[in-house]
Amino acid sequence: MAIRALVWGENVHERTNDAVRALYPDGMHHCIASALNAADGITAATATLQDPEHGLTTPRLAETDVLLWWGHAAHGEVEDGIVERVCEQVWSGMGLILLHSAHFSKIFKRLMGTPCNLSWREAGERERIWVANPRHPIAKGLPSHFVLENEEMYGEPFGVPEPLETVFISWFQGGEVFRSGLTYRRGAGKVFYFRPGHETYPTYHDRTVQQVLTNAVRWAHNPAARMSDVTSAPNVPVEQAPEPIETRGPNVHEPGDEGFR
Amino acid sequence: MAIRALVWGENVHERTNDAVRALYPDGMHHCIASALNAADGITAATATLQDPEHGLTTPRLAETDVLLWWGHAAHGEVEDGIVERVCEQVWSGMGLILLHSAHFSKIFKRLMGTPCNLSWREAGERERIWVANPRHPIAKGLPSHFVLENEEMYGEPFGVPEPLETVFISWFQGGEVFRSGLTYRRGAGKVFYFRPGHETYPTYHDRTVQQVLTNAVRWAHNPAARMSDVTSAPNVPVEQAPEPIETRGPNVHEPGDEGFR
Amino acid sequence: MAIRALVWGENVHERTNDAVRALYPDGMHHCIASALNAADGITAATATLQDPEHGLTTPRLAETDVLLWWGHAAHGEVEDGIVERVCEQVWSGMGLILLHSAHFSKIFKRLMGTPCNLSWREAGERERIWVANPRHPIAKGLPSHFVLENEEMYGEPFGVPEPLETVFISWFQGGEVFRSGLTYRRGAGKVFYFRPGHETYPTYHDRTVQQVLTNAVRWAHNPAARMSDVTSAPNVPVEQAPEPIETRGPNVHEPGDEGFR
Amino acid sequence: MAIRALVWGENVHERTNDAVRALYPDGMHHCIASALNAADGITAATATLQDPEHGLTTPRLAETDVLLWWGHAAHGEVEDGIVERVCEQVWSGMGLILLHSAHFSKIFKRLMGTPCNLSWREAGERERIWVANPRHPIAKGLPSHFVLENEEMYGEPFGVPEPLETVFISWFQGGEVFRSGLTYRRGAGKVFYFRPGHETYPTYHDRTVQQVLTNAVRWAHNPAARMSDVTSAPNVPVEQAPEPIETRGPNVHEPGDEGFR
Repeated sequence: MAIRALVWGENVHERTNDAVRALYPDGMHHCIASALNAADGITAATATLQDPEHGLTTPRLAETDVLLWWGHAAHGEVEDGIVERVCEQVWSGMGLILLHSAHFSKIFKRLMGTPCNLSWREAGERERIWVANPRHPIAKGLPSHFVLENEEMYGEPFGVPEPLETVFISWFQGGEVFRSGLTYRRGAGKVFYFRPGHETYPTYHDRTVQQVLTNAVRWAHNPAARMSDVTSAPNVPVEQAPEPIETRGPNVHEPGDEGFR
Repeated sequence: MAIRALVWGENVHERTNDAVRALYPDGMHHCIASALNAADGITAATATLQDPEHGLTTPRLAETDVLLWWGHAAHGEVEDGIVERVCEQVWSGMGLILLHSAHFSKIFKRLMGTPCNLSWREAGERERIWVANPRHPIAKGLPSHFVLENEEMYGEPFGVPEPLETVFISWFQGGEVFRSGLTYRRGAGKVFYFRPGHETYPTYHDRTVQQVLTNAVRWAHNPAARMSDVTSAPNVPVEQAPEPIETRGPNVHEPGDEGFR
Repeated sequence: MAIRALVWGENVHERTNDAVRALYPDGMHHCIASALNAADGITAATATLQDPEHGLTTPRLAETDVLLWWGHAAHGEVEDGIVERVCEQVWSGMGLILLHSAHFSKIFKRLMGTPCNLSWREAGERERIWVANPRHPIAKGLPSHFVLENEEMYGEPFGVPEPLETVFISWFQGGEVFRSGLTYRRGAGKVFYFRPGHETYPTYHDRTVQQVLTNAVRWAHNPAARMSDVTSAPNVPVEQAPEPIETRGPNVHEPGDEGFR
Repeated sequence: MAIRALVWGENVHERTNDAVRALYPDGMHHCIASALNAADGITAATATLQDPEHGLTTPRLAETDVLLWWGHAAHGEVEDGIVERVCEQVWSGMGLILLHSAHFSKIFKRLMGTPCNLSWREAGERERIWVANPRHPIAKGLPSHFVLENEEMYGEPFGVPEPLETVFISWFQGGEVFRSGLTYRRGAGKVFYFRPGHETYPTYHDRTVQQVLTNAVRWAHNPAARMSDVTSAPNVPVEQAPEPIETRGPNVHEPGDEGFR
């Protein structure tokens, strides 16, 4: 069965900025989804901020194997309840790929537990992306490095936890460096942050970038059944303990209590 | 200069449960602070949920090197704004030690980005804590393992991200295991989770537990000056780029913009 | 195409100890290979210490996707040159699964860079193995925990580097704990250590253990083409630098030098 | 008591290459040791390849808190037995700092379990080193980045395991990037790799580099007593099991056996 990807786009600058509209007349989310749909074994759909519930209803997330997220100007307009809903799906096993300015999305900050900040410069400078982890599934088919002639600069320090793996590191013409591809696991969900993708440049039309996204979707897909009750803290009654024991001492819980949260 | 520890106690069951009050007539926070004050180079104070702003005003946190946190019945009563305030201090360099049922505190869940759940049983069973990382500063002076004759059981899976280091692993009489001592770093702040400490048992009177807490305070202390503006994402204007470059292509930002959040 | 597994067995106690022979008349390696061959998409063969070049010739390793390793009494008889050969294949992308007493194999110690030691007791006691990382591919289809009624005890501290992931943790009847399933990556090769499998007990006949091994083979398989020249340190001549630069200052290398090793 | 640092220098190019001799007439090891001796609380001595036992006798290592290692042209002349001796001291708690071309030293490759390879270019190009982990003890007192106007280039991929922490990342004028400051723990020993320090440039005369080395010595120092028998795998006889158990089933070990290695 094909991997079901869902590309979420904030869809603001595509409608309000002429340069962005010219590059992505149907929105960046459509450009990305088209690239994914061209790959074997992936079917990609789209959702946007403007859709009811941002296009991220519970049934739709339940049918999503990997969610890709692009946002920039309107992070604050994403509803907190939907952020929690997405979080729970990630913990339950849904893959999540954060793109470029999504470093400051509510969902990424929520999953990282850190500020996720960085330094930046919008000068259309050259970015050279190096593969730091050869033969990693996300780097499949890539050369040792590739160039995006015009990109926004993001510079270290990147305010994230130590990653599980560092897949890409970027060199910028203006003198900075950045860890451009980082993997994490949160619960049963695999998380990948990928740096490139400023809206005023044709990054998502680049074939190598499209290859990375395709690879990342395949990597982030957890084929196991989604977990249920992913935040529960089950009580194991004394009579169900794996080894026979008897209760000793005083209690704050009554039998059958669910515990404090 | 002494390390300034602040022991935060929820201070509920000490006032409402006779067994807990009998063990900790002044509250668990006072018991812990007394143990820390008996150690060289540490001065410990206390704060509770019932204090104004939970005793965690901005000036007080600014003068706190390491915060210890015990909560259980009233996690939900901790104000969200104060949780964010504590988070920012951790990112800025304040150490944080989470005790026992603080696995479900807002602050721990916020910093981990995961559910932080587990299985549990309140049966006063035997817990044997093994040092998995000998010569780690938090294990200083400890034997290879030590026993708490009566403790609440916490069982794997523990819903947290992979830790930086696994310091302790617990064996329970009833048949479960648990990673009882885990380290993390969030921004400039060092974070330690330590499992034991159920309120109906005399755990915080135990000398070995007190040694762990003393070690952990010393480990979690970051002597560097606290960071300022720890969530800022500074723009580096093109004319201040480390290497000389010129702007190319279109922009979504005007010169002097602060960037979207 | 099926994943090509190769099960390497030391094959000593199966021939010299009656109890072991009774359990594994064809050797543990055959028992394990049979279980793998019963799984979809895996073809497993065997090799032993007694084979020429221990059955691990360069062509055979080149055709091996995942190598499983069981050794105990004869670690010292494995030739150093063959250990290096296996290492290079792991770095190049071959998966490696270390079983039980292979914690002290030359190949595991070589890849870890640590003593890989532990405490132990051969008393046929109960081992209960907990899944610490639900929905990890290696835990596919497993219950929350499973029991081996008779196993050798291995106790913490386990002298290995911090793993990438902790998949299993064991509880022992005699009071110890152990991190029983650990993942690492070494170059392009995925490495998994799995604790159970003492030769005097029927562990490799256990269906759940067989499921773990099947899962682990699938997880350890890197489908990318094996890397070549995996230890090379290529010089990038100044005229081939990605950005145009000119040589400045004195040199210790002549043009065309291969560098010191 | 002062931290006892020992700076090990290969001491070959300082004697055979005029440019290197001019920069470091007493050897790089003396330059580094002088910088360390100028810092509070550190006393630094030196040892070289040409000394008996390379200056690394067992008693001397026992009195060394942190060993710094610079080698390049003569990695192969370091005796294997002395490499093992240094390894055991690291596992026992001695800190180890690897400098520049020591990425290919026997001791680093031994501790990493990987090829430790990289790409390189000796062109005296500009290196800009970014702090990726602000307020890390090794970055104490450093600006956000610093420049070495002439350095050898080292490029990714760097063939090492995922580090515990990424402290520095380098930008090179010629277009490459490199993880220039990485931390590891091997047993009780803290390990730090620091990239700069090509022998034909005045890198070790740079004040910021000297600050990094001073910081790193303080960070790598484990004040706990050195571990003994760091490779032992102790048997726990059944009568000494923490919980009372009785032996069941057959054995391959006789009572009192030391186990196989």
